[in-house]
Amino acid sequence: MWALGAVGGARGAALAAAAVAVTAVALAVLAWRRARPVREVLFFPSRPCCIEALLAEAAQPGAPARPCPCPLPSGDTALSRLVRRLLSARRSLDLCLFCFSCPQLARAVQLLHRRGVRVRLVTDAQYMGLHGSQIGRLRHAGIQVRHDQHSGYMHHKFAIVDRRMLITGSLNWTTQAIQSNRENVLVVEDAEYVKAFQDEFERIWEEYNPTNYSFFLKGNK
Amino acid sequence: MWALGAVGGARGAALAAAAVAVTAVALAVLAWRRARPVREVLFFPSRPCCIEALLAEAAQPGAPARPCPCPLPSGDTALSRLVRRLLSARRSLDLCLFCFSCPQLARAVQLLHRRGVRVRLVTDAQYMGLHGSQIGRLRHAGIQVRHDQHSGYMHHKFAIVDRRMLITGSLNWTTQAIQSNRENVLVVEDAEYVKAFQDEFERIWEEYNPTNYSFFLKGNK
Repeated sequence: MWALGAVGGARGAALAAAAVAVTAVALAVLAWRRARPVREVLFFPSRPCCIEALLAEAAQPGAPARPCPCPLPSGDTALSRLVRRLLSARRSLDLCLFCFSCPQLARAVQLLHRRGVRVRLVTDAQYMGLHGSQIGRLRHAGIQVRHDQHSGYMHHKFAIVDRRMLITGSLNWTTQAIQSNRENVLVVEDAEYVKAFQDEFERIWEEYNPTNYSFFLKGNK
Repeated sequence: MWALGAVGGARGAALAAAAVAVTAVALAVLAWRRARPVREVLFFPSRPCCIEALLAEAAQPGAPARPCPCPLPSGDTALSRLVRRLLSARRSLDLCLFCFSCPQLARAVQLLHRRGVRVRLVTDAQYMGLHGSQIGRLRHAGIQVRHDQHSGYMHHKFAIVDRRMLITGSLNWTTQAIQSNRENVLVVEDAEYVKAFQDEFERIWEEYNPTNYSFFLKGNK
């Protein structure tokens, strides 16, 4: 019995050691995956999809999911991935967008604003007033918006999440672009690229400060 | 004299060894700089600039430079950097461009085509026929062009040099965008990103193969 017990003990110890090793490896893999910088390329058009579950989870993490009555599927699409990346913001979201008329993305941005994330938005003066633009709605919700005063376009289409993750590409934030166009979006967690774009954002943010606007009246000298 | 000679010899050997070491370090630095992948961010608008010297050097490397009579400066700008990256192509240039009306960039692409680089160009059907478009000129020069047949836009703005370097961003290849708009272009030598965009290019190239076009006549069943 003792011998058996000893063998059983040795086997138990070996099993326990193996379990500890497996757990350690699993934790290491998890930590590596968490620590590994995001590098993702999204191509559009994206299949239309329902993002209600993503928004609900972001609004009340852990709350039981209520099924959405809309007929759209809620699978893994380029749009849902983009929304997930945006909703990962905890402190800040800096947006530099030529055209913003997609209601789904506007809801995600509003949700972040309500959650206390500091949202700043730079956009193009000529496109912000077009039919379907979400800029008025976002301003109404209390989000800071600035725009250009030039003849050229503010044609960037990038976002920076928590001064850590850059989301940039050809995609204007419109439903037409998301569902119908050939587009690309790069998602990169890379300090060098993020810094370059963050510096560009701060330059534009300051340049478009309303205190720098000039107002001319025709006929005045 | 012998002793002096011996000292002189030792000094000479030391100097020679130092020279060898300096050369080795310089070569190592050069090799490292060459091997280091390109990571560059270009922001626009770019100052207008003359790119004749760049084109001449690419057409006839080492030939004595002839001064250009145009009044534009030929300094280091976002445009000249973009042109340099394009002109570094040796084997292939794959272009996926929503809008291409900049004559300077068209000249660079034509030069590469003449030099034997395999140029393929995908563009948007609705924008390729607009006033100032360079697509007709490039086709006339013998460059392969394909376009979409959809209602959505082919809105990408990327180039792949030698299946090795990705050039992508918000910039349409128009003089207006280059000189007047707020735009960004990322230049990355990164196998993972290049592969994702190269695969997208090949998908589109095949999808837009003219043999896949469909032609409907109204009234026919």
